[in-house]
Amino acid sequence: VDATLAMLGDVGYQGLTIEGVATLAGVSKATIYRWWSTKANLVIEAVSHRLQQPPPPSGDALMDIRAMIATLVGIFAGAVGSVLPVLAVDVAGDPDATEKLASVLGPYRAGNTAVLLSAVGRGELPHDIDTTAVLDAIIGTILYRRLMHRPLDSSLVDQLTVLVLNGEVPRLQAQPLAGSCNSAV
Amino acid sequence: VDATLAMLGDVGYQGLTIEGVATLAGVSKATIYRWWSTKANLVIEAVSHRLQQPPPPSGDALMDIRAMIATLVGIFAGAVGSVLPVLAVDVAGDPDATEKLASVLGPYRAGNTAVLLSAVGRGELPHDIDTTAVLDAIIGTILYRRLMHRPLDSSLVDQLTVLVLNGEVPRLQAQPLAGSCNSAV
Repeated sequence: VDATLAMLGDVGYQGLTIEGVATLAGVSKATIYRWWSTKANLVIEAVSHRLQQPPPPSGDALMDIRAMIATLVGIFAGAVGSVLPVLAVDVAGDPDATEKLASVLGPYRAGNTAVLLSAVGRGELPHDIDTTAVLDAIIGTILYRRLMHRPLDSSLVDQLTVLVLNGEVPRLQAQPLAGSCNSAV
Repeated sequence: VDATLAMLGDVGYQGLTIEGVATLAGVSKATIYRWWSTKANLVIEAVSHRLQQPPPPSGDALMDIRAMIATLVGIFAGAVGSVLPVLAVDVAGDPDATEKLASVLGPYRAGNTAVLLSAVGRGELPHDIDTTAVLDAIIGTILYRRLMHRPLDSSLVDQLTVLVLNGEVPRLQAQPLAGSCNSAV
């Protein structure tokens, strides 16, 4: 898995080969095939090691949602940001790999949903919020900006936080956000 | 270009070869190489044929922004949705192709920015709106939902429209949107 992550960082998903990973890890190709039947399965396992749960809810919706978004930005700024889009397209025709990818992403999606529902529970977000749509919007924005080589910085985190929490569309001159002064991504 | 689009729809970006396109188009590989030096350049040209400008602003911000988002959903529901993410990762190490992709996307980005600025001009969006961030959020959301095989339907269009225009986070039971009753994506 370490060798896979190193190679993904260097050559990306399309350049990665089972042979290359075996050489880097100092094992035989057969050893790798024993554990992972396909390149997609190997990469899904590697990606799962880079995913992170958001910090546990503190009770302050602004801080919690900001921390969740900052965690997502940190994940997608790394290899996951360039690998996941290609991986998702690659597994589309393979039901087993699609199911495996869904089972790896599921617990992280649940952790992020819990952050949103915790804010709903305190009355800071509407009770009928579509958590799937909100998380798709947050992750999609981060991922597309990564693909287009636009900065993934703390002002993006602030913009997405006020969009979710206050319904403020992104502004050029973001207002300083309470609680965000000392944090950076 | 027609052969490239047909082949992208069938086998995707990774499965596409210059040889396959030449066979389908009934021309020699040399002919294709004369016009497009690399697979990335050929695919960028093919993608550019599937992009669409939004309808010209009508003066009604709700209708204009909804029509723009519906146009984007239509574009990304097709081959562009699975090709663009892989293409963007593929050209990242190639400055010429990156520049070419930027020059192809630029005019469409400008057309969409004009729709937002037209709403700013009528006082329906804040004057200091970050149009790049807003369009990245709209396109990123559509693209990620496509990658995750979630529906790209008129309720997504409604959710994104009220998010941009009214700052309403996506709800499970969307309110019917004035002006959207007869339109579908």
